[in-house]
Amino acid sequence: MSTKGKILLSINGFSPQRWYEMLSEEREVVLEPDGPADPSIEYAVVWKQKPGLLAKLPNLKAIFSIGAGVDHVFADPTLPDLPIVRVVADNLTQHMVEYVLWRVLDHHRQGQLYRAQQTKKVWHEPPQRAAEDISVGIMGLGNLGRAAAKALMTIGFRVNGWSRRPQEVVGVSTYDGDAGLVPFLNATDILVVLLPLTEATTGIINYGLLKELRRRNGLGGAVLINAGRGRLQRDADILRALDDGTLKEASLDVFEVEPLPKTSPVWSHPKVFVTPHAAATSDPAHLVGPMLRQMDAFERGERLQNLVDREAGY
Amino acid sequence: MSTKGKILLSINGFSPQRWYEMLSEEREVVLEPDGPADPSIEYAVVWKQKPGLLAKLPNLKAIFSIGAGVDHVFADPTLPDLPIVRVVADNLTQHMVEYVLWRVLDHHRQGQLYRAQQTKKVWHEPPQRAAEDISVGIMGLGNLGRAAAKALMTIGFRVNGWSRRPQEVVGVSTYDGDAGLVPFLNATDILVVLLPLTEATTGIINYGLLKELRRRNGLGGAVLINAGRGRLQRDADILRALDDGTLKEASLDVFEVEPLPKTSPVWSHPKVFVTPHAAATSDPAHLVGPMLRQMDAFERGERLQNLVDREAGY
Repeated sequence: MSTKGKILLSINGFSPQRWYEMLSEEREVVLEPDGPADPSIEYAVVWKQKPGLLAKLPNLKAIFSIGAGVDHVFADPTLPDLPIVRVVADNLTQHMVEYVLWRVLDHHRQGQLYRAQQTKKVWHEPPQRAAEDISVGIMGLGNLGRAAAKALMTIGFRVNGWSRRPQEVVGVSTYDGDAGLVPFLNATDILVVLLPLTEATTGIINYGLLKELRRRNGLGGAVLINAGRGRLQRDADILRALDDGTLKEASLDVFEVEPLPKTSPVWSHPKVFVTPHAAATSDPAHLVGPMLRQMDAFERGERLQNLVDREAGY
Repeated sequence: MSTKGKILLSINGFSPQRWYEMLSEEREVVLEPDGPADPSIEYAVVWKQKPGLLAKLPNLKAIFSIGAGVDHVFADPTLPDLPIVRVVADNLTQHMVEYVLWRVLDHHRQGQLYRAQQTKKVWHEPPQRAAEDISVGIMGLGNLGRAAAKALMTIGFRVNGWSRRPQEVVGVSTYDGDAGLVPFLNATDILVVLLPLTEATTGIINYGLLKELRRRNGLGGAVLINAGRGRLQRDADILRALDDGTLKEASLDVFEVEPLPKTSPVWSHPKVFVTPHAAATSDPAHLVGPMLRQMDAFERGERLQNLVDREAGY
């Protein structure tokens, strides 16, 4: 144990208990300290770490983010210039793919309408298109976006993809950059947002963007699904788009402020389905192992995997 | 046109209009007659045909069922001993696969709980298993059952299958016959019913059967999804199983009596999701073409495809 670098665990917003226990099985773990910086700490495992904390550690070698997004790491203005490792785990991807398929299918198969009919005891079958007649557009073609695209195509949906930089994904009609955004939206019936949160993407899901989504006869408006980050969207713009028929329905897992305040009109909007940032939760049972293996490999002189591009911010 | 056999169209329970128009584009079509039997009628296209009607036609050569199930054809006690062709169509299969995935995912991802939380503005994330930890059991391994199994496996679920006769489906743990039923149920968390309705399967989804489903810690009871036929199930037994915790939730597309009577307690049961026999509707736009192609081929001397086994009743 003594030759292995120590870990600082800094989790804010939920309990670090299970992470602490599981990381401690193989390495010494320090919970966010208030005292003098410990020179034996070589790794930080963080979720919304306290600003300034990492800069004080003299021998820190790498930062491991809990969660696929790393905006919470960059929120620290004194973040040291060290490698940042994002989470890439089959379990996390699996949960996200399930969430995306679940929400796409519930909108596509008119779950909201059937639930309303049931409360009124109405036996009525509305017209129903098949998946092959619906284009799902995914914003963000990282690991999660590509996995969701693949699963949607397997079920029969047509899939468009948009990313900041050009990407190729087999079977997906891809678009990129500012010039590709409107054509992408114009060809999309159901929009799935899996973007990283950066300066460039903050507030990108606004009324003007939603207005560009395709609205076809018989579908009753476009659909928005956001499972990325809340600050990608403007909550008020989504409600406006729902109220004026630009959007038919929305599934939101993330919000500008989380937990979603009780005073938010989003909670009671009849066309919004709310989940509490639960699309794909980072489960230490599946994520701690790969983190510890990376630390071991790093100490054997190997390169760290799944590194964040600091320039791009994701 | 004159050399092509005439079609009798007998549809009861919904409008034959679109079927009539589309079949008429290539052949002469007679709507269910009350007068003397027409010797030029060679084919019958039927949904719940009037009993006795087909037996009167002197030159009938084949019966085409609208819908994948043929119990509605056999309901006629004077049914002549002629080939019966079932519908097998990609479009119908696609709709059924979508329905099964949609309902499995909504139960698996705790849609009911999240909808209840939203009405109370509760921000709470319950534990969530991944698909690989859930076994979906499919009763009925015909075209629809096999397609649903394949899609469920692609998403990551474990799949069991049960059928009356032994079947092999790659990746699926299959069980068969009376001896295989209890072991199949004991290994199943979410039961999907896609059986044909025959004498042997009438009422098979009863309280005793539901009691055999696996109930694991943390899952809160088993789940039932019936997209087969209503008379496979006993509505009252399902409600009893829901009320005593044997079942956690159910999605029912079919019912003992359809349309589901307004007086049925099923409508307002908080753990049941009702759709009006809409999982996979026979759409003439996709089904008429293949039917006409079969008639053409038959007249060229080829064998009819997708024939029903009269002995088995499906």
